[in-house]
Amino acid sequence: MICQHVSIKTIIPLSLSSQPLNSLKSDEAASGPKQGPTFQDGQRRVDYVLTYHIQKPRSFRRKTSHFGDYRILRSLRRSLSMMRGRDTPPPKEDPEVAAHKHRLDYHEDDKRFRQTEFEDNLREMGLELEKDEGRINLFIRKVTTLFYPLLSCQILYEEWASYSVFYKYQPIGLIRKYFGEKIGLYFAWLGVYTQMLIPAAIVGAIVFLYGCATVDNDIPSMEICDPRNNITMCPLCDRACSYWKLKTACGTARASHLFDNPATVFFSIFMALWAAMFMEHWKRRQMRLNYIWDLTGFEEEEVSLCPYTTASLLLYVCSYFSLDYVLIPLFQDKKVKLTCTDRAPAYMTGLFTMLFMVGVTFAVVFGVILYRISIRAALHMSSNPTARTNIRATVKGTAAVINLVIIIIMDEVYGALARWLTLLEVPKTDKSFEERLIIKTFVLKFANAFSPIVYLAFFRGRMVGRPGDYLYVIGSYRMEECAHAGCLMELCIQLCITMLGKQLIQNNLFEIGIPKIKKLIRRRKSDMDSQQQEDYNMTLQRHEKDHFLGPFVGLSPEYMEMIIQFGMVTLFVASFPLAPLFALLNNIIEIRLDAKKFVTEVRRPIAGSAKDIGIWYNLLRGLSKVAVIVNAFVISFTSDFIPRLVYQYMYSPDGSMHGFVNHTLSYFNVSDFQPGTAPLQPMHLGYEVQICRYKDYRETPWSNTPYDLSKEFWAILACRLAFVVVFQNVVMLMSDFVDWLIPDIPKDISLQIHKEKILMVELFMKEEEGKKLLRDSHAKQSPLQPRSRPASHTPSNC
Amino acid sequence: MICQHVSIKTIIPLSLSSQPLNSLKSDEAASGPKQGPTFQDGQRRVDYVLTYHIQKPRSFRRKTSHFGDYRILRSLRRSLSMMRGRDTPPPKEDPEVAAHKHRLDYHEDDKRFRQTEFEDNLREMGLELEKDEGRINLFIRKVTTLFYPLLSCQILYEEWASYSVFYKYQPIGLIRKYFGEKIGLYFAWLGVYTQMLIPAAIVGAIVFLYGCATVDNDIPSMEICDPRNNITMCPLCDRACSYWKLKTACGTARASHLFDNPATVFFSIFMALWAAMFMEHWKRRQMRLNYIWDLTGFEEEEVSLCPYTTASLLLYVCSYFSLDYVLIPLFQDKKVKLTCTDRAPAYMTGLFTMLFMVGVTFAVVFGVILYRISIRAALHMSSNPTARTNIRATVKGTAAVINLVIIIIMDEVYGALARWLTLLEVPKTDKSFEERLIIKTFVLKFANAFSPIVYLAFFRGRMVGRPGDYLYVIGSYRMEECAHAGCLMELCIQLCITMLGKQLIQNNLFEIGIPKIKKLIRRRKSDMDSQQQEDYNMTLQRHEKDHFLGPFVGLSPEYMEMIIQFGMVTLFVASFPLAPLFALLNNIIEIRLDAKKFVTEVRRPIAGSAKDIGIWYNLLRGLSKVAVIVNAFVISFTSDFIPRLVYQYMYSPDGSMHGFVNHTLSYFNVSDFQPGTAPLQPMHLGYEVQICRYKDYRETPWSNTPYDLSKEFWAILACRLAFVVVFQNVVMLMSDFVDWLIPDIPKDISLQIHKEKILMVELFMKEEEGKKLLRDSHAKQSPLQPRSRPASHTPSNC
Repeated sequence: MICQHVSIKTIIPLSLSSQPLNSLKSDEAASGPKQGPTFQDGQRRVDYVLTYHIQKPRSFRRKTSHFGDYRILRSLRRSLSMMRGRDTPPPKEDPEVAAHKHRLDYHEDDKRFRQTEFEDNLREMGLELEKDEGRINLFIRKVTTLFYPLLSCQILYEEWASYSVFYKYQPIGLIRKYFGEKIGLYFAWLGVYTQMLIPAAIVGAIVFLYGCATVDNDIPSMEICDPRNNITMCPLCDRACSYWKLKTACGTARASHLFDNPATVFFSIFMALWAAMFMEHWKRRQMRLNYIWDLTGFEEEEVSLCPYTTASLLLYVCSYFSLDYVLIPLFQDKKVKLTCTDRAPAYMTGLFTMLFMVGVTFAVVFGVILYRISIRAALHMSSNPTARTNIRATVKGTAAVINLVIIIIMDEVYGALARWLTLLEVPKTDKSFEERLIIKTFVLKFANAFSPIVYLAFFRGRMVGRPGDYLYVIGSYRMEECAHAGCLMELCIQLCITMLGKQLIQNNLFEIGIPKIKKLIRRRKSDMDSQQQEDYNMTLQRHEKDHFLGPFVGLSPEYMEMIIQFGMVTLFVASFPLAPLFALLNNIIEIRLDAKKFVTEVRRPIAGSAKDIGIWYNLLRGLSKVAVIVNAFVISFTSDFIPRLVYQYMYSPDGSMHGFVNHTLSYFNVSDFQPGTAPLQPMHLGYEVQICRYKDYRETPWSNTPYDLSKEFWAILACRLAFVVVFQNVVMLMSDFVDWLIPDIPKDISLQIHKEKILMVELFMKEEEGKKLLRDSHAKQSPLQPRSRPASHTPSNC
Repeated sequence: MICQHVSIKTIIPLSLSSQPLNSLKSDEAASGPKQGPTFQDGQRRVDYVLTYHIQKPRSFRRKTSHFGDYRILRSLRRSLSMMRGRDTPPPKEDPEVAAHKHRLDYHEDDKRFRQTEFEDNLREMGLELEKDEGRINLFIRKVTTLFYPLLSCQILYEEWASYSVFYKYQPIGLIRKYFGEKIGLYFAWLGVYTQMLIPAAIVGAIVFLYGCATVDNDIPSMEICDPRNNITMCPLCDRACSYWKLKTACGTARASHLFDNPATVFFSIFMALWAAMFMEHWKRRQMRLNYIWDLTGFEEEEVSLCPYTTASLLLYVCSYFSLDYVLIPLFQDKKVKLTCTDRAPAYMTGLFTMLFMVGVTFAVVFGVILYRISIRAALHMSSNPTARTNIRATVKGTAAVINLVIIIIMDEVYGALARWLTLLEVPKTDKSFEERLIIKTFVLKFANAFSPIVYLAFFRGRMVGRPGDYLYVIGSYRMEECAHAGCLMELCIQLCITMLGKQLIQNNLFEIGIPKIKKLIRRRKSDMDSQQQEDYNMTLQRHEKDHFLGPFVGLSPEYMEMIIQFGMVTLFVASFPLAPLFALLNNIIEIRLDAKKFVTEVRRPIAGSAKDIGIWYNLLRGLSKVAVIVNAFVISFTSDFIPRLVYQYMYSPDGSMHGFVNHTLSYFNVSDFQPGTAPLQPMHLGYEVQICRYKDYRETPWSNTPYDLSKEFWAILACRLAFVVVFQNVVMLMSDFVDWLIPDIPKDISLQIHKEKILMVELFMKEEEGKKLLRDSHAKQSPLQPRSRPASHTPSNC
């Protein structure tokens, strides 16, 4: 739909037009398919082949304005490198680029040489293309811009797109040369992210192991598991459920300790600082890449949507919102400028659709809750004993899987919806189109992925009511409670399933499986058996084969996947310290998977220049800010960290944790059950129950204000909130400090840039002097010729 | 101590050196003192005169590297303005510059012309100065760099440095031309700040008026003032004080309402957004000024401290920390590079001195508290009835004044101390010296100015203990309590006195008074009566007169004063809505006062180039971030806003505020007084007191846990903290939103910059083509001459 622009990296070689174009076809038999096509002389190989569908003409724009900039910088760099070596240390080599260079140096020096030469040729040609524009444009107008490079991608395939090199740095320089800066930056970013995940994964694993090691010394879970503490709990559902013994929750309590221990608090502070470090580290790396890739002076040009697209979009939008008065100039083939009033309906539609879809997401979450409640009630009522013992596990497992399936389905729906909404807005430029699309997709997908998790973390078990006064939704469904040791365990399971599931299913199934299936279907359609297919393939030219590959759909899905993962890693890290480890394992595979996909599975994308990762950086930054407050809330409200501290220092008689479990349980007199809600089998445990216990801080039945929130409740609430305030501000301060401590531009790079600037000025001066000299000598030789321009009016007389 | 650098703005006219220097002296009599000196021909006037002390030679460095940059940009701008007018709209005129231009346009066009011509001449000369450096340097080495411009500063004096034009925009363009960018940016910033204060002052005044208007409808103060509510309060001090009636606090309660009402909450949100808006507005204005002043490509050069200063500093530091091994190369006249180990002692000294001084500040605050406590106890014990009735006012007033005096004295001490500490660190460059000095001064002065206020806002009245169990400091002094309606009123008074006092005394006394006194003393020393003086003055040349003015001490004190004021305006605005109004009134005077000082009272400062206000921006940004959390705490903890809300929605029987006062007061049984602390005159009120009341949320004497913190206390604490969390996050989100909404670079400016960049590239291309053409024709005319440089090796062959 969008006009694609071509950067200076992908240029049609002029030599093609100087040779008859059909020379390509006639040459086929002579050179053989393995060697690739050559020109008529059989010597010079063809570097790029242009294939196109004749039936779909598109308009085509090129960027030309940066040649000058680039050339100046390049010559500067060259002269600088000549002058260097005496006094200025060269800037530190980029580890990835250096690693690759080293690799190449000792066994395929000639390959690199050829590569460089080829690149230089391209640039040289680019410049020539610039000069005689008229001739080329006629040629270009007719074709679509799909270039099939025949340049050997063997190096990339061997050195990068293979699982066997997962432990190596990526050859970023080569990736950028082959795919352009945009994709180069994506892989550089992914590399930095994966690299930064290593310490996080290690610390996370240590925190988890600390939990494992201390689980036997945890007094609260010991108390729960101790059969001597004969605590009778109130029923978990109306009528069908009966009283139960606290010690049946022993397993959950012990498992909870793995994720809910003091080390988790340390870990979430660590991860907040980690996020700040990551952002800084990336900024520096980006700056370094910008310098190495000569992008410091580069300014992204605003490429408008092509008129054809805009017009058809306008037509669509106008008919959609019945804007007749805009249609009139459109049919008169005039340039249409949408006013604010014209755009308002689209914006409104966008806003309300977004709100509605976020609402749908919440409704889905609520639906899953209802499913859980009803299934649990049904299972409780069933007489099958094995079903009843596995109730919790069954309900949790199926609900999480249902959630996951819904998330994956809705993800696809939301992607299409965001695209449609962005089209309705008719953005002016390519960049604004992309940004708007990304923001919309991000909001929808993020709400989709995180609403079940947020529900589990902050709402579940908080709107339950109390025995005798439960909260009912839709008739007679009681809201679900958490297991005894907090909802943290369930949050963990949900996070684990979402992360693993999303990564496994979306990556492996969608990214690998579906293209394979598509290929299979295409093969089926062509009505050939595999032997025939093989034979046919052998006869095909390289560029013909490439044409049958899938198209490149942009980097947004790749980034989006990673951002959602980054959210999982930072937002709820307090409840799941293993998240960074999972993410790391996934990303190691992801890099190579994406590499394989880009090198072999899709057509080579058109190289795009970019200075940074754009709006993704802002999203990452926003996420890492939100992560601080979310983690503060998870620690203080979802985990039992604060109640334990408060008990130990305010209520414990001997300063230890003994008696904590008893302290967290309130008393309930069974005679206060509302009519019809008392358990049907009161003698289930074998004795008559007078007083049952439930997890809440409320007054006793025999106090003046029975079942009111107790003083302990308010004290603990105050402490929880105080913790949030302190945690948030301390961590934010520390993050800002990290931000301030690490300069955005590496010292050596900034020094180098400064020196180049000075050199540039000196160069101009010398140049001017040389020009003056030349002019003077010229004037001397022909004294009669009048000076056309006096020196004071020359524009750049430095 | 520091080498001063000279920017291109202040250049010695070369013509001076081409004329005999003594021509100046010989010419005096002929032209008369009023006309200023001319050269020998009696026609050409002298623009700059260089005066110097021969006995103090200093080294002297100049900046030369930006000529090229500047020239290129200027020529571009010129050619752009020629091409403009057809398709591109010119960037919006700067209001202040425009205002000034308009003013000049219609009545002194020639003056402006002369101004521009003069500026151009200076630049022209600057370039020439560049060329024959050797000759000039010999001349410059001997002299100090004090230039006395004889350019008429009449315009500045009339249009700017006068109180009568306070309502006008400042002529920023002219200020910059006369004083350089650094000072220009200061006044531009001050102008933006003052301008932005206008809406804040208006809203603040409205909030205050709202408080005044609703004071009669305020139920809590009505209840306090109602004589029917016969509430007996516990004594405010041990033994000397007796029980008192709550209705005596009526006045304070009513006054408190002026500052403690719901409108204040709105106002602090408003002010947080205001601060964000101000930062954004300034960023845009700075960008615009950068564009207008041709600074977009300007890069500040790192000017190292002059070797003489560094050497002497090193000597001092080394002897101070007895670093012998560093001294050895120093005496061998080698360049010394301090390692981290060498610098460590200085950093440590700096850190610990800073900590110690902040500790001293706290000690001073504590001393004032002790003074208040002891004076109050003494006054209570005195038998003078008038003294006793005025106790509160007397204590508050004297304490605030003492605080103020201490703040002002310590300010001077801290300024000197920060300077010494920075010198110890031997910073490498001028800029780093300035930044380090500013940060140190800021920390010390800020702690100094704000520690009494922070104590009043957050600590006073919170560490009191309770009747029967008071907290005692240093023997038998009881910690002071707040008046009934919170400490807000006292905070207000403190803020008011500090702001007014600091501004009045520091501005008027220090900035105006002391220079006048110094002048007076100097005059006394010279042993002349005023008539003689006048006569003598008449005979003096302009530049001789200027030499007797005070030196320019830098902008730091001016900025610092404003930053502290900004802190007052934003940090505690919740407790004192009139602060912006006070600040506005002060600043209107401040601008003209500074202007007068700069134009007439000090020697014309050496113009410095600067792109931004540097570290001050970061400090402002930090302050506006801290302001959010401080205001959240002031509203929730210092004011009674949250307790009122909680009472109304949780405890009030009829949902109104009736009964609030009773609810905030706890009961105390007088028999529980510790021995020796009961009042000496228990019958002071005329009846025997059994139960007295005190302001706290504690259990009643007849409960199971007498005098423990009650459930209400914890509930209110939780609500207070919840408010802090919500307020902070909502306001931060809104600030970030404002930040995101307003682009940093004005649209028209960014468009213009982009266009200029494209034009530059085109220009280069044309230039290159022209050069090639010239070379070709040259080659044609002399075909035998070999081409020395092949085209492919020319460095900038675009």
